[in-house]
Amino acid sequence: MKIKKSEIKRKNVIGVFDSGLGGLSVLKNFIKFLPNYNYLYLGDNARVPYGEKSSETIYEYSRQAINFLFSSGCNLVIIACNTASAQALRKLQQEYLPKHYPDGRILGVIRPLAEEVIKRNKKNIGIIGTKSTINSLSYIKEIQSLNKEIKVEQVSTPLLVPLIEEGWIKKPETKMILKKYLRPLKIKKISMLILACTHYPFLLKDIRRICGKNIEVPDPGEVVAKSLKKYLSNHPELKLTKVKNSKKDFCFTDNSILFKNLAEKFLKKEIKDFKLINLNEF
Amino acid sequence: MKIKKSEIKRKNVIGVFDSGLGGLSVLKNFIKFLPNYNYLYLGDNARVPYGEKSSETIYEYSRQAINFLFSSGCNLVIIACNTASAQALRKLQQEYLPKHYPDGRILGVIRPLAEEVIKRNKKNIGIIGTKSTINSLSYIKEIQSLNKEIKVEQVSTPLLVPLIEEGWIKKPETKMILKKYLRPLKIKKISMLILACTHYPFLLKDIRRICGKNIEVPDPGEVVAKSLKKYLSNHPELKLTKVKNSKKDFCFTDNSILFKNLAEKFLKKEIKDFKLINLNEF
Repeated sequence: MKIKKSEIKRKNVIGVFDSGLGGLSVLKNFIKFLPNYNYLYLGDNARVPYGEKSSETIYEYSRQAINFLFSSGCNLVIIACNTASAQALRKLQQEYLPKHYPDGRILGVIRPLAEEVIKRNKKNIGIIGTKSTINSLSYIKEIQSLNKEIKVEQVSTPLLVPLIEEGWIKKPETKMILKKYLRPLKIKKISMLILACTHYPFLLKDIRRICGKNIEVPDPGEVVAKSLKKYLSNHPELKLTKVKNSKKDFCFTDNSILFKNLAEKFLKKEIKDFKLINLNEF
Repeated sequence: MKIKKSEIKRKNVIGVFDSGLGGLSVLKNFIKFLPNYNYLYLGDNARVPYGEKSSETIYEYSRQAINFLFSSGCNLVIIACNTASAQALRKLQQEYLPKHYPDGRILGVIRPLAEEVIKRNKKNIGIIGTKSTINSLSYIKEIQSLNKEIKVEQVSTPLLVPLIEEGWIKKPETKMILKKYLRPLKIKKISMLILACTHYPFLLKDIRRICGKNIEVPDPGEVVAKSLKKYLSNHPELKLTKVKNSKKDFCFTDNSILFKNLAEKFLKKEIKDFKLINLNEF
Protein backbone atom coordinates (compact mmCIF):
# COMPACT_ATOMS: atom_id res chain seq x y z
CA MET A 1 0.00 0.00 0.00
CA LYS A 2 1.60 3.25 -1.08
CA ILE A 3 -0.76 5.77 0.55
CA LYS A 4 -0.23 6.27 4.27
CA LYS A 5 -3.20 4.63 5.93
CA SER A 6 -4.05 7.53 8.21
CA GLU A 7 -4.32 9.78 5.13
CA ILE A 8 -7.03 7.74 3.44
CA LYS A 9 -10.22 9.78 3.23
CA ARG A 10 -13.38 8.41 4.82
CA LYS A 11 -16.02 8.28 2.12
CA ASN A 12 -19.28 8.10 4.08
CA VAL A 13 -19.59 4.35 3.57
CA ILE A 14 -20.55 1.50 5.91
CA GLY A 15 -18.49 -1.62 5.23
CA VAL A 16 -20.02 -5.03 5.74
CA PHE A 17 -17.63 -7.96 5.90
CA ASP A 18 -18.53 -11.61 5.77
CA SER A 19 -16.62 -14.84 5.15
CA GLY A 20 -18.92 -15.45 2.20
CA LEU A 21 -22.48 -14.74 1.22
CA GLY A 22 -24.35 -15.18 4.52
CA GLY A 23 -23.63 -11.58 5.48
CA LEU A 24 -25.91 -10.51 2.64
CA SER A 25 -28.82 -11.52 4.91
CA VAL A 26 -27.50 -8.92 7.37
CA LEU A 27 -26.97 -6.31 4.65
CA LYS A 28 -30.57 -6.92 3.52
CA ASN A 29 -31.72 -5.84 6.98
CA PHE A 30 -29.42 -2.80 6.96
CA ILE A 31 -30.94 -1.71 3.65
CA LYS A 32 -34.42 -2.23 5.13
CA PHE A 33 -33.88 -0.41 8.45
CA LEU A 34 -31.18 2.07 7.34
CA PRO A 35 -31.91 2.69 3.67
CA ASN A 36 -30.21 6.08 3.34
CA TYR A 37 -26.61 5.02 3.76
CA ASN A 38 -23.89 3.87 1.37
CA TYR A 39 -22.70 0.29 1.76
CA LEU A 40 -19.64 -1.65 0.62
CA TYR A 41 -20.05 -5.39 1.02
CA LEU A 42 -17.02 -7.69 1.05
CA GLY A 43 -17.49 -11.46 0.90
CA ASP A 44 -14.40 -13.66 1.14
CA ASN A 45 -16.05 -16.42 -0.88
CA ALA A 46 -12.68 -17.75 -2.12
CA ARG A 47 -11.84 -18.89 1.40
CA VAL A 48 -15.29 -19.54 2.84
CA PRO A 49 -16.21 -21.14 5.24
CA TYR A 50 -14.32 -19.77 8.23
CA GLY A 51 -16.28 -21.97 10.67
CA GLU A 52 -13.67 -24.69 11.12
CA LYS A 53 -10.44 -22.75 10.63
CA SER A 54 -7.98 -21.90 13.42
CA SER A 55 -8.35 -18.58 15.22
CA GLU A 56 -4.96 -17.47 13.80
CA THR A 57 -6.15 -18.00 10.24
CA ILE A 58 -9.54 -16.39 10.94
CA TYR A 59 -7.77 -13.38 12.44
CA GLU A 60 -5.40 -13.01 9.49
CA TYR A 61 -8.17 -13.31 6.88
CA SER A 62 -10.35 -10.84 8.82
CA ARG A 63 -7.46 -8.40 9.21
CA GLN A 64 -6.92 -8.40 5.45
CA ALA A 65 -10.64 -7.78 4.91
CA ILE A 66 -10.73 -4.93 7.42
CA ASN A 67 -7.61 -3.40 5.88
CA PHE A 68 -9.25 -3.56 2.45
CA LEU A 69 -12.50 -1.98 3.64
CA PHE A 70 -10.89 0.89 5.56
CA SER A 71 -8.37 1.57 2.83
CA SER A 72 -11.35 1.74 0.46
CA GLY A 73 -12.72 4.61 2.54
CA CYS A 74 -15.25 2.97 4.89
CA ASN A 75 -15.99 4.96 8.05
CA LEU A 76 -17.32 1.98 9.96
CA VAL A 77 -17.17 -1.77 9.34
CA ILE A 78 -19.64 -4.36 10.56
CA ILE A 79 -18.30 -7.89 10.76
CA ALA A 80 -21.46 -9.75 9.82
CA CYS A 81 -19.81 -13.16 10.16
CA ASN A 82 -20.31 -14.74 13.57
CA THR A 83 -17.11 -16.78 13.34
CA ALA A 84 -14.98 -13.70 12.57
CA SER A 85 -16.84 -11.69 15.23
CA ALA A 86 -16.06 -14.44 17.72
CA GLN A 87 -12.45 -15.05 16.76
CA ALA A 88 -11.04 -11.79 15.43
CA LEU A 89 -13.14 -8.76 16.39
CA ARG A 90 -11.67 -7.99 19.81
CA LYS A 91 -8.03 -8.12 18.65
CA LEU A 92 -8.87 -6.03 15.58
CA GLN A 93 -10.60 -3.42 17.75
CA GLN A 94 -7.90 -3.34 20.41
CA GLU A 95 -4.70 -3.73 18.41
CA TYR A 96 -5.01 -3.39 14.65
CA LEU A 97 -7.45 -0.50 14.36
CA PRO A 98 -5.91 1.99 16.83
CA LYS A 99 -2.56 1.55 15.10
CA HIS A 100 -3.67 1.70 11.48
CA TYR A 101 -7.08 3.34 11.26
CA PRO A 102 -7.58 5.28 14.52
CA ASP A 103 -10.57 7.11 13.05
CA GLY A 104 -12.36 3.91 11.99
CA ARG A 105 -14.73 1.71 14.00
CA ILE A 106 -15.53 -2.00 13.79
CA LEU A 107 -18.63 -3.65 15.20
CA GLY A 108 -19.55 -7.32 15.39
CA VAL A 109 -22.83 -9.19 15.62
CA ILE A 110 -22.42 -10.85 19.01
CA ARG A 111 -22.84 -7.79 21.24
CA PRO A 112 -26.21 -6.73 19.76
CA LEU A 113 -27.59 -10.25 20.23
CA ALA A 114 -26.30 -10.40 23.82
CA GLU A 115 -28.01 -7.07 24.48
CA GLU A 116 -31.23 -8.45 23.00
CA VAL A 117 -31.16 -11.19 25.66
CA ILE A 118 -31.10 -8.52 28.38
CA LYS A 119 -33.77 -6.46 26.63
CA ARG A 120 -36.10 -9.44 26.47
CA ASN A 121 -35.25 -10.32 30.08
CA LYS A 122 -34.50 -13.98 29.28
CA LYS A 123 -32.55 -16.14 31.72
CA ASN A 124 -32.08 -19.44 29.91
CA ILE A 125 -30.58 -19.04 26.45
CA GLY A 126 -29.75 -21.46 23.67
CA ILE A 127 -27.18 -20.82 20.95
CA ILE A 128 -26.69 -22.62 17.64
CA GLY A 129 -23.72 -21.84 15.37
CA THR A 130 -20.66 -23.17 13.57
CA LYS A 131 -18.12 -25.25 15.47
CA SER A 132 -15.69 -22.37 15.68
CA THR A 133 -18.27 -19.90 17.03
CA ILE A 134 -19.49 -22.44 19.60
CA ASN A 135 -15.96 -23.46 20.65
CA SER A 136 -14.95 -19.82 21.11
CA LEU A 137 -17.55 -19.47 23.92
CA SER A 138 -17.93 -15.87 22.72
CA TYR A 139 -21.69 -15.70 23.13
CA ILE A 140 -21.51 -17.12 26.65
CA LYS A 141 -18.81 -14.62 27.62
CA GLU A 142 -20.64 -11.67 26.07
CA ILE A 143 -24.03 -12.53 27.60
CA GLN A 144 -22.59 -13.30 31.02
CA SER A 145 -20.57 -10.06 30.96
CA LEU A 146 -23.96 -8.33 30.94
CA ASN A 147 -25.55 -10.63 33.53
CA LYS A 148 -23.69 -13.46 35.23
CA GLU A 149 -26.90 -15.24 36.25
CA ILE A 150 -28.00 -16.04 32.71
CA LYS A 151 -27.63 -19.68 31.75
CA VAL A 152 -26.44 -20.41 28.23
CA GLU A 153 -26.58 -23.77 26.42
CA GLN A 154 -24.79 -24.23 23.11
CA VAL A 155 -25.02 -26.70 20.20
CA SER A 156 -22.84 -26.60 17.07
CA THR A 157 -24.92 -27.25 13.97
CA PRO A 158 -22.46 -27.50 11.06
CA LEU A 159 -24.85 -29.24 8.65
CA LEU A 160 -27.24 -26.31 8.43
CA VAL A 161 -25.04 -24.13 6.20
CA PRO A 162 -24.58 -26.81 3.50
CA LEU A 163 -28.29 -27.73 3.67
CA ILE A 164 -29.24 -24.07 3.16
CA GLU A 165 -26.68 -23.54 0.39
CA GLU A 166 -27.94 -26.69 -1.32
CA GLY A 167 -31.44 -25.16 -1.30
CA TRP A 168 -32.84 -27.98 0.85
CA ILE A 169 -34.77 -25.59 3.09
CA LYS A 170 -38.11 -27.34 2.72
CA LYS A 171 -36.84 -30.94 2.53
CA PRO A 172 -37.89 -33.45 5.23
CA GLU A 173 -34.22 -34.36 5.85
CA THR A 174 -33.51 -30.75 6.86
CA LYS A 175 -36.44 -30.78 9.30
CA MET A 176 -35.22 -34.07 10.81
CA ILE A 177 -31.70 -32.70 11.24
CA LEU A 178 -33.04 -29.47 12.75
CA LYS A 179 -35.15 -31.42 15.25
CA LYS A 180 -32.14 -33.53 16.22
CA TYR A 181 -29.98 -30.44 16.72
CA LEU A 182 -32.61 -28.54 18.73
CA ARG A 183 -33.67 -31.44 20.98
CA PRO A 184 -30.96 -30.97 23.67
CA LEU A 185 -31.81 -27.25 23.88
CA LYS A 186 -35.53 -27.94 24.27
CA ILE A 187 -34.76 -30.47 27.02
CA LYS A 188 -32.82 -27.74 28.85
CA LYS A 189 -35.98 -25.59 28.63
CA ILE A 190 -34.37 -22.55 27.03
CA SER A 191 -36.64 -19.51 26.64
CA MET A 192 -34.75 -17.81 23.81
CA LEU A 193 -32.67 -19.19 20.93
CA ILE A 194 -29.90 -17.19 19.25
CA LEU A 195 -29.14 -18.05 15.63
CA ALA A 196 -25.38 -17.44 15.69
CA CYS A 197 -24.81 -17.78 11.95
CA THR A 198 -25.90 -15.50 9.12
CA HIS A 199 -27.30 -18.45 7.14
CA TYR A 200 -29.74 -19.70 9.74
CA PRO A 201 -32.51 -17.06 9.26
CA PHE A 202 -33.39 -18.99 6.09
CA LEU A 203 -34.69 -21.70 8.40
CA LEU A 204 -36.36 -19.25 10.78
CA LYS A 205 -39.89 -20.48 10.12
CA ASP A 206 -39.07 -24.13 10.77
CA ILE A 207 -36.83 -23.34 13.73
CA ARG A 208 -39.64 -21.28 15.33
CA ARG A 209 -42.15 -24.07 14.67
CA ILE A 210 -39.86 -26.72 16.21
CA CYS A 211 -39.04 -24.45 19.17
CA GLY A 212 -42.72 -23.84 19.90
CA LYS A 213 -44.34 -20.88 21.59
CA ASN A 214 -42.20 -20.99 24.75
CA ILE A 215 -38.94 -20.20 22.97
CA GLU A 216 -38.42 -16.79 21.36
CA VAL A 217 -36.25 -16.83 18.22
CA PRO A 218 -35.37 -13.31 17.04
CA ASP A 219 -34.20 -12.68 13.49
CA PRO A 220 -30.51 -11.86 14.09
CA GLY A 221 -30.21 -9.61 11.02
CA GLU A 222 -33.07 -7.46 12.31
CA VAL A 223 -31.55 -7.24 15.81
CA VAL A 224 -28.15 -6.20 14.39
CA ALA A 225 -29.71 -3.63 12.04
CA LYS A 226 -31.73 -1.99 14.82
CA SER A 227 -28.68 -1.92 17.04
CA LEU A 228 -26.65 -0.27 14.25
CA LYS A 229 -29.36 2.37 13.85
CA LYS A 230 -29.04 3.26 17.53
CA TYR A 231 -25.24 3.20 17.32
CA LEU A 232 -25.19 5.63 14.40
CA SER A 233 -27.44 8.11 16.18
CA ASN A 234 -25.13 7.94 19.23
CA HIS A 235 -21.92 8.38 17.24
CA PRO A 236 -22.03 11.51 15.08
CA GLU A 237 -18.21 11.64 15.22
CA LEU A 238 -18.13 8.82 12.66
CA LYS A 239 -19.40 11.36 10.13
CA LEU A 240 -21.77 8.88 8.53
CA THR A 241 -24.48 11.01 7.03
CA LYS A 242 -27.68 10.09 5.26
CA VAL A 243 -27.70 10.28 1.48
CA LYS A 244 -30.53 10.51 -0.98
CA ASN A 245 -29.28 7.99 -3.52
CA SER A 246 -27.71 5.28 -1.47
CA LYS A 247 -24.89 3.31 -3.17
CA LYS A 248 -24.40 -0.42 -2.63
CA ASP A 249 -21.12 -1.83 -3.86
CA PHE A 250 -20.05 -5.45 -3.75
CA CYS A 251 -16.63 -7.05 -3.62
CA PHE A 252 -15.90 -10.75 -3.64
CA THR A 253 -12.69 -12.75 -3.60
CA ASP A 254 -13.88 -15.44 -6.01
CA ASN A 255 -15.98 -15.36 -9.12
CA SER A 256 -17.52 -18.81 -8.96
CA ILE A 257 -20.33 -19.50 -11.39
CA LEU A 258 -22.24 -20.96 -8.47
CA PHE A 259 -22.14 -18.01 -6.15
CA LYS A 260 -24.18 -15.37 -7.96
CA ASN A 261 -27.48 -17.21 -7.69
CA LEU A 262 -26.87 -17.94 -4.06
CA ALA A 263 -25.89 -14.32 -3.37
CA GLU A 264 -29.11 -13.08 -4.91
CA LYS A 265 -31.09 -15.56 -2.84
CA PHE A 266 -29.50 -14.11 0.31
CA LEU A 267 -29.99 -10.49 -0.66
CA LYS A 268 -33.38 -11.06 -2.30
CA LYS A 269 -32.16 -8.69 -5.02
CA GLU A 270 -30.06 -8.89 -8.16
CA ILE A 271 -26.35 -8.14 -7.83
CA LYS A 272 -25.63 -6.47 -11.14
CA ASP A 273 -22.01 -5.67 -10.70
CA PHE A 274 -19.20 -6.58 -8.35
CA LYS A 275 -15.46 -6.22 -8.06
CA LEU A 276 -13.13 -9.20 -7.77
CA ILE A 277 -10.33 -8.59 -5.28
CA ASN A 278 -7.32 -10.46 -3.93
CA LEU A 279 -7.21 -10.08 -0.15
CA ASN A 280 -3.68 -11.52 0.10
CA GLU A 281 -2.44 -8.14 -1.08
CA PHE A 282 -3.91 -6.43 2.01
CA MET B 1 12.15 -18.30 -3.92
CA LYS B 2 15.89 -17.76 -3.99
CA ILE B 3 17.02 -21.12 -5.37
CA LYS B 4 16.52 -21.56 -9.09
CA LYS B 5 13.69 -24.03 -9.46
CA SER B 6 15.46 -26.28 -11.96
CA GLU B 7 18.36 -26.68 -9.50
CA ILE B 8 16.22 -28.13 -6.71
CA LYS B 9 17.26 -31.69 -6.02
CA ARG B 10 14.67 -34.45 -6.29
CA LYS B 11 14.61 -36.26 -2.97
CA ASN B 12 12.95 -39.58 -3.81
CA VAL B 13 9.58 -38.45 -2.45
CA ILE B 14 6.02 -38.81 -3.76
CA GLY B 15 3.95 -35.70 -3.06
CA VAL B 16 0.24 -36.03 -2.37
CA PHE B 17 -1.79 -32.86 -2.61
CA ASP B 18 -5.36 -32.38 -1.45
CA SER B 19 -7.58 -29.39 -0.74
CA GLY B 20 -7.91 -30.66 2.81
CA LEU B 21 -7.98 -33.97 4.60
CA GLY B 22 -9.89 -36.20 2.18
CA GLY B 23 -6.68 -37.00 0.32
CA LEU B 24 -5.49 -38.87 3.39
CA SER B 25 -7.90 -41.64 2.35
CA VAL B 26 -5.89 -41.85 -0.89
CA LEU B 27 -2.55 -41.72 0.94
CA LYS B 28 -3.80 -44.55 3.19
CA ASN B 29 -4.14 -46.70 0.07
CA PHE B 30 -0.71 -45.66 -1.24
CA ILE B 31 0.82 -46.74 2.07
CA LYS B 32 -1.07 -50.04 1.81
CA PHE B 33 -0.23 -50.87 -1.81
CA LEU B 34 3.13 -49.04 -2.09
CA PRO B 35 4.57 -49.15 1.43
CA ASN B 36 8.25 -48.71 0.50
CA TYR B 37 8.17 -45.13 -0.72
CA ASN B 38 8.58 -41.75 0.95
CA TYR B 39 5.53 -39.50 1.00
CA LEU B 40 4.96 -35.80 1.57
CA TYR B 41 1.28 -34.97 2.10
CA LEU B 42 0.05 -31.40 1.68
CA GLY B 43 -3.50 -30.48 2.75
CA ASP B 44 -4.71 -26.93 2.10
CA ASN B 45 -7.11 -27.07 5.03
CA ALA B 46 -7.00 -23.27 5.50
CA ARG B 47 -8.84 -22.84 2.20
CA VAL B 48 -10.83 -26.07 2.00
CA PRO B 49 -13.26 -26.83 0.37
CA TYR B 50 -12.35 -26.21 -3.27
CA GLY B 51 -15.62 -27.75 -4.49
CA GLU B 52 -17.51 -24.51 -5.09
CA LYS B 53 -14.71 -22.13 -6.01
CA SER B 54 -14.06 -20.78 -9.51
CA SER B 55 -11.65 -22.64 -11.78
CA GLU B 56 -9.26 -19.62 -11.68
CA THR B 57 -9.04 -19.80 -7.89
CA ILE B 58 -8.72 -23.59 -7.90
CA TYR B 59 -5.91 -23.34 -10.46
CA GLU B 60 -4.04 -20.68 -8.47
CA TYR B 61 -4.32 -22.58 -5.16
CA SER B 62 -3.26 -25.82 -6.85
CA ARG B 63 -0.33 -24.12 -8.58
CA GLN B 64 0.94 -22.83 -5.22
CA ALA B 65 0.63 -26.33 -3.77
CA ILE B 66 2.46 -27.93 -6.68
CA ASN B 67 5.19 -25.29 -6.46
CA PHE B 68 5.58 -26.01 -2.75
CA LEU B 69 5.76 -29.79 -3.25
CA PHE B 70 8.28 -29.70 -6.12
CA SER B 71 10.41 -27.07 -4.43
CA SER B 72 10.42 -29.38 -1.39
CA GLY B 73 12.03 -32.05 -3.54
CA CYS B 74 9.15 -34.27 -4.66
CA ASN B 75 9.83 -36.30 -7.82
CA LEU B 76 6.16 -36.87 -8.57
CA VAL B 77 2.97 -35.30 -7.24
CA ILE B 78 -0.46 -36.92 -7.12
CA ILE B 79 -3.36 -34.51 -6.96
CA ALA B 80 -5.67 -36.56 -4.77
CA CYS B 81 -8.42 -33.93 -4.83
CA ASN B 82 -11.00 -34.55 -7.55
CA THR B 83 -11.90 -30.87 -7.83
CA ALA B 84 -8.26 -29.83 -8.39
CA SER B 85 -7.73 -32.79 -10.74
CA ALA B 86 -10.76 -31.64 -12.72
CA GLN B 87 -10.02 -27.92 -12.76
CA ALA B 88 -6.25 -27.50 -12.62
CA LEU B 89 -4.35 -30.68 -13.54
CA ARG B 90 -4.25 -30.31 -17.31
CA LYS B 91 -3.01 -26.70 -17.26
CA LEU B 92 -0.42 -27.55 -14.61
CA GLN B 93 0.83 -30.48 -16.68
CA GLN B 94 0.87 -28.61 -19.96
CA GLU B 95 1.99 -25.11 -18.95
CA TYR B 96 3.32 -24.74 -15.41
CA LEU B 97 5.36 -27.90 -15.05
CA PRO B 98 7.35 -27.89 -18.32
CA LYS B 99 8.40 -24.30 -17.58
CA HIS B 100 9.30 -24.62 -13.90
CA TYR B 101 9.91 -28.27 -13.06
CA PRO B 102 10.57 -30.07 -16.35
CA ASP B 103 11.85 -33.15 -14.50
CA GLY B 104 8.72 -33.45 -12.32
CA ARG B 105 5.47 -35.27 -13.06
CA ILE B 106 1.91 -34.66 -11.85
CA LEU B 107 -0.88 -37.21 -11.90
CA GLY B 108 -4.54 -36.82 -11.02
CA VAL B 109 -7.24 -39.21 -9.89
CA ILE B 110 -9.63 -38.96 -12.82
CA ARG B 111 -7.61 -40.88 -15.42
CA PRO B 112 -7.16 -44.03 -13.28
CA LEU B 113 -10.90 -44.16 -12.58
CA ALA B 114 -11.73 -43.66 -16.25
CA GLU B 115 -9.36 -46.53 -17.09
CA GLU B 116 -11.10 -48.68 -14.47
CA VAL B 117 -14.35 -48.22 -16.40
CA ILE B 118 -12.69 -49.66 -19.53
CA LYS B 119 -11.03 -52.44 -17.53
CA ARG B 120 -14.39 -53.50 -16.09
CA ASN B 121 -16.00 -53.17 -19.51
CA LYS B 122 -18.90 -51.05 -18.22
CA LYS B 123 -21.05 -49.03 -20.61
CA ASN B 124 -23.40 -47.08 -18.36
CA ILE B 125 -21.59 -45.12 -15.67
CA GLY B 126 -22.76 -42.95 -12.81
CA ILE B 127 -20.65 -40.24 -11.16
CA ILE B 128 -21.19 -38.49 -7.83
CA GLY B 129 -18.99 -35.58 -6.75
CA THR B 130 -18.80 -31.94 -5.68
CA LYS B 131 -20.56 -29.29 -7.74
CA SER B 132 -17.29 -28.11 -9.26
CA THR B 133 -16.16 -31.62 -10.29
CA ILE B 134 -19.57 -32.38 -11.80
CA ASN B 135 -19.83 -29.02 -13.59
CA SER B 136 -16.35 -29.45 -15.07
CA LEU B 137 -17.58 -32.54 -17.01
CA SER B 138 -14.04 -33.89 -16.53
CA TYR B 139 -15.07 -37.47 -15.85
CA ILE B 140 -17.36 -37.53 -18.88
CA LYS B 141 -14.59 -36.15 -21.12
CA GLU B 142 -11.96 -38.53 -19.74
CA ILE B 143 -14.15 -41.64 -20.00
CA GLN B 144 -15.45 -40.76 -23.45
CA SER B 145 -11.92 -40.03 -24.67
CA LEU B 146 -11.29 -43.74 -24.03
CA ASN B 147 -14.58 -44.91 -25.49
CA LYS B 148 -17.14 -42.58 -27.03
CA GLU B 149 -19.95 -45.11 -26.67
CA ILE B 150 -19.96 -45.11 -22.88
CA LYS B 151 -22.92 -43.31 -21.32
CA VAL B 152 -22.20 -41.21 -18.23
CA GLU B 153 -24.79 -39.81 -15.82
CA GLN B 154 -23.73 -37.33 -13.14
CA VAL B 155 -25.20 -36.08 -9.86
CA SER B 156 -23.59 -33.48 -7.59
CA THR B 157 -23.85 -34.49 -3.96
CA PRO B 158 -22.54 -31.55 -1.90
CA LEU B 159 -24.09 -32.64 1.40
CA LEU B 160 -22.01 -35.79 1.69
CA VAL B 161 -18.75 -34.08 2.68
CA PRO B 162 -20.27 -32.16 5.61
CA LEU B 163 -22.21 -35.25 6.74
CA ILE B 164 -18.98 -37.30 6.74
CA GLU B 165 -16.97 -34.58 8.45
CA GLU B 166 -19.71 -34.26 11.08
CA GLY B 167 -19.30 -37.99 11.78
CA TRP B 168 -22.90 -38.74 10.77
CA ILE B 169 -21.90 -41.80 8.74
CA LYS B 170 -24.33 -44.17 10.41
CA LYS B 171 -27.21 -41.71 10.98
CA PRO B 172 -30.59 -42.36 9.29
CA GLU B 173 -30.57 -38.82 7.83
CA THR B 174 -27.38 -39.64 5.92
CA LYS B 175 -28.93 -42.82 4.51
CA MET B 176 -32.04 -40.88 3.45
CA ILE B 177 -29.94 -38.23 1.72
CA LEU B 178 -27.81 -40.89 0.02
CA LYS B 179 -30.91 -42.67 -1.28
CA LYS B 180 -32.27 -39.38 -2.61
CA TYR B 181 -28.97 -38.59 -4.37
CA LEU B 182 -28.58 -42.08 -5.88
CA ARG B 183 -32.19 -42.49 -7.05
CA PRO B 184 -31.78 -40.74 -10.46
CA LEU B 185 -28.68 -42.85 -11.19
CA LYS B 186 -30.48 -46.09 -10.31
CA ILE B 187 -33.37 -45.07 -12.56
CA LYS B 188 -30.87 -44.65 -15.40
CA LYS B 189 -29.72 -48.25 -14.74
CA ILE B 190 -26.01 -47.49 -14.34
CA SER B 191 -23.78 -50.54 -13.97
CA MET B 192 -20.86 -48.81 -12.23
CA LEU B 193 -20.69 -45.84 -9.88
CA ILE B 194 -17.59 -43.65 -9.52
CA LEU B 195 -17.11 -41.90 -6.20
CA ALA B 196 -15.51 -38.70 -7.48
CA CYS B 197 -14.56 -37.28 -4.08
CA THR B 198 -11.96 -38.46 -1.59
CA HIS B 199 -14.46 -38.32 1.28
CA TYR B 200 -17.04 -40.67 -0.18
CA PRO B 201 -15.27 -43.99 0.52
CA PHE B 202 -16.36 -43.46 4.14
CA LEU B 203 -19.89 -44.19 2.94
CA LEU B 204 -18.81 -47.07 0.68
CA LYS B 205 -20.74 -49.73 2.60
CA ASP B 206 -24.03 -47.84 2.53
CA ILE B 207 -23.55 -46.70 -1.06
CA ARG B 208 -22.92 -50.30 -2.15
CA ARG B 209 -25.98 -51.49 -0.23
CA ILE B 210 -28.22 -48.80 -1.78
CA CYS B 211 -26.77 -49.47 -5.26
CA GLY B 212 -27.47 -53.19 -4.99
CA LYS B 213 -25.70 -56.05 -6.73
CA ASN B 214 -26.14 -54.72 -10.27
CA ILE B 215 -23.98 -51.64 -9.73
CA GLU B 216 -20.25 -52.01 -9.10
CA VAL B 217 -18.76 -49.36 -6.79
CA PRO B 218 -14.94 -49.54 -6.69
CA ASP B 219 -13.00 -47.94 -3.84
CA PRO B 220 -11.38 -44.99 -5.66
CA GLY B 221 -8.35 -44.86 -3.35
CA GLU B 222 -7.57 -48.49 -4.18
CA VAL B 223 -7.97 -47.89 -7.93
CA VAL B 224 -5.65 -44.86 -7.82
CA ALA B 225 -3.03 -46.69 -5.71
CA LYS B 226 -2.93 -49.69 -8.05
CA SER B 227 -2.66 -47.38 -11.04
CA LEU B 228 0.23 -45.52 -9.38
CA LYS B 229 2.00 -48.84 -8.77
CA LYS B 230 1.81 -49.61 -12.46
CA TYR B 231 2.89 -46.08 -13.39
CA LEU B 232 5.98 -46.28 -11.19
CA SER B 233 7.09 -49.55 -12.70
CA ASN B 234 6.69 -48.03 -16.19
CA HIS B 235 8.58 -44.82 -15.37
CA PRO B 236 12.04 -45.56 -13.98
CA GLU B 237 13.20 -42.15 -15.27
CA LEU B 238 11.38 -40.57 -12.30
CA LYS B 239 14.10 -42.07 -10.10
CA LEU B 240 11.65 -43.05 -7.41
CA THR B 241 13.28 -45.97 -5.67
CA LYS B 242 12.06 -48.21 -2.87
CA VAL B 243 13.34 -47.49 0.61
CA LYS B 244 13.46 -49.67 3.70
CA ASN B 245 12.26 -47.11 6.22
CA SER B 246 9.62 -45.14 4.43
CA LYS B 247 9.13 -41.54 5.60
CA LYS B 248 5.70 -39.90 5.73
CA ASP B 249 5.69 -36.15 6.23
CA PHE B 250 2.65 -33.94 6.57
CA CYS B 251 2.12 -30.27 5.78
CA PHE B 252 -1.06 -28.32 6.38
CA THR B 253 -2.00 -24.70 5.83
CA ASP B 254 -4.08 -24.36 8.99
CA ASN B 255 -3.67 -25.65 12.49
CA SER B 256 -7.31 -25.88 13.50
CA ILE B 257 -8.02 -27.72 16.72
CA LEU B 258 -10.75 -29.57 14.88
CA PHE B 259 -8.71 -30.99 12.05
CA LYS B 260 -6.32 -33.39 13.78
CA ASN B 261 -9.04 -35.81 14.90
CA LEU B 262 -10.59 -35.76 11.49
CA ALA B 263 -7.20 -36.26 9.81
CA GLU B 264 -6.53 -39.32 11.92
CA LYS B 265 -9.96 -40.70 11.11
CA PHE B 266 -9.12 -40.41 7.40
CA LEU B 267 -5.67 -41.91 7.67
CA LYS B 268 -6.65 -44.47 10.34
CA LYS B 269 -3.33 -43.61 11.98
CA GLU B 270 -2.02 -40.97 14.36
CA ILE B 271 -0.39 -37.89 12.81
CA LYS B 272 2.31 -37.12 15.33
CA ASP B 273 3.93 -34.19 13.69
CA PHE B 274 3.21 -31.81 10.86
CA LYS B 275 4.51 -28.55 9.42
CA LEU B 276 2.34 -25.47 9.10
CA ILE B 277 2.95 -23.64 5.84
CA ASN B 278 1.69 -20.52 4.08
CA LEU B 279 0.97 -21.34 0.44
CA ASN B 280 0.57 -17.68 -0.51
CA GLU B 281 4.36 -17.47 -0.50
CA PHE B 282 4.60 -20.06 -3.30
